[in-house]
Amino acid sequence: MECGLLFSGGKDSALAALLLDEFYDVTLVTAHFGVTDDWQHAEEAAEALGFAFEEIELDTDVADTAVERMRDDGFPRSGIQQVHEAALEAVAAKYEIVADGTRRDDRVPTVSRAVAQSLEDRHDVDYVAPLSGFGRNAVDDLVETHLVVESGPSEEVPKGDYETELRARIRERWNEAIISEVFPDHEQTRVVGRA
Amino acid sequence: MECGLLFSGGKDSALAALLLDEFYDVTLVTAHFGVTDDWQHAEEAAEALGFAFEEIELDTDVADTAVERMRDDGFPRSGIQQVHEAALEAVAAKYEIVADGTRRDDRVPTVSRAVAQSLEDRHDVDYVAPLSGFGRNAVDDLVETHLVVESGPSEEVPKGDYETELRARIRERWNEAIISEVFPDHEQTRVVGRA
Repeated sequence: MECGLLFSGGKDSALAALLLDEFYDVTLVTAHFGVTDDWQHAEEAAEALGFAFEEIELDTDVADTAVERMRDDGFPRSGIQQVHEAALEAVAAKYEIVADGTRRDDRVPTVSRAVAQSLEDRHDVDYVAPLSGFGRNAVDDLVETHLVVESGPSEEVPKGDYETELRARIRERWNEAIISEVFPDHEQTRVVGRA
Repeated sequence: MECGLLFSGGKDSALAALLLDEFYDVTLVTAHFGVTDDWQHAEEAAEALGFAFEEIELDTDVADTAVERMRDDGFPRSGIQQVHEAALEAVAAKYEIVADGTRRDDRVPTVSRAVAQSLEDRHDVDYVAPLSGFGRNAVDDLVETHLVVESGPSEEVPKGDYETELRARIRERWNEAIISEVFPDHEQTRVVGRA
């Protein structure tokens, strides 16, 4: 069965791909807004992992609604959640199995049972989250064994995740100060191959 | 890493084993009370699947507390949950990775994030539930592709699950009528091999 797995180039979605590889025909799908070309970093990671890749361009409205929400909130959580749900909808329109790399302990994005069921019923698909039964430590151990990863501050590790483009969109619409307000400094990771 | 996966001989825990097979050194573990020899049905299923097998005998007190709770409640849910948590504790004492086959839509047993975290912290283990991000339909599709299963009413499909022994324990302590009160008729499945 054809499975579209939302893929940022980061270690969680890469590990999710390895878990599903034996059971589905997995394509790694990176959703973006056409604001930057950073989705190409995810494509490189997908190639390094040996998976098929597709990029899906979401409507710019999704980005704008998200950055407005983030600016109002002063933190990214709800905006990222909105974007993730829009990306799941886009994948559900094209694949019979929709997957992502959300973990048990993730705070954002999360996909509740109700959101999963709604996605499945409306699109006649199955949503699967292979890491949702794995905690941080179990994921880290598997990543260390199966993946080669580089990590560093968000702005220095080029990824294909929503954050990179949403930062750029905030910069376009407002200024650098809003970015610092919304996004606290944190470490990012990018997958560069299999171990 | 050594992973002990709670195994009933049913399709969910068998599929969980296939999902984890590439990532851990999986042993299928059947917990029982020494009331009947039904755990041997799980051992047969484990052999058919090509996995290592271990049986763990839980304290009879666990069974008695559970059947008393079931009799008081008039339904099995809380009693089964108690037994499952006791079985997880027993596996956590012997393996560094503790796993089970609970699905996203399972009503019982369920392992909440809090229960998982508590198990992990107290035993210095990781708890993983590879099917917790899969709904009923996705599990059924994978089972159909990867497993050979027989199904039928609970009393006719011999399994190594808690229910078989708890029924026997209720019969020993009270009578057949209590069994019918506590356990509604439902279909069981037992794995007989890989597809």
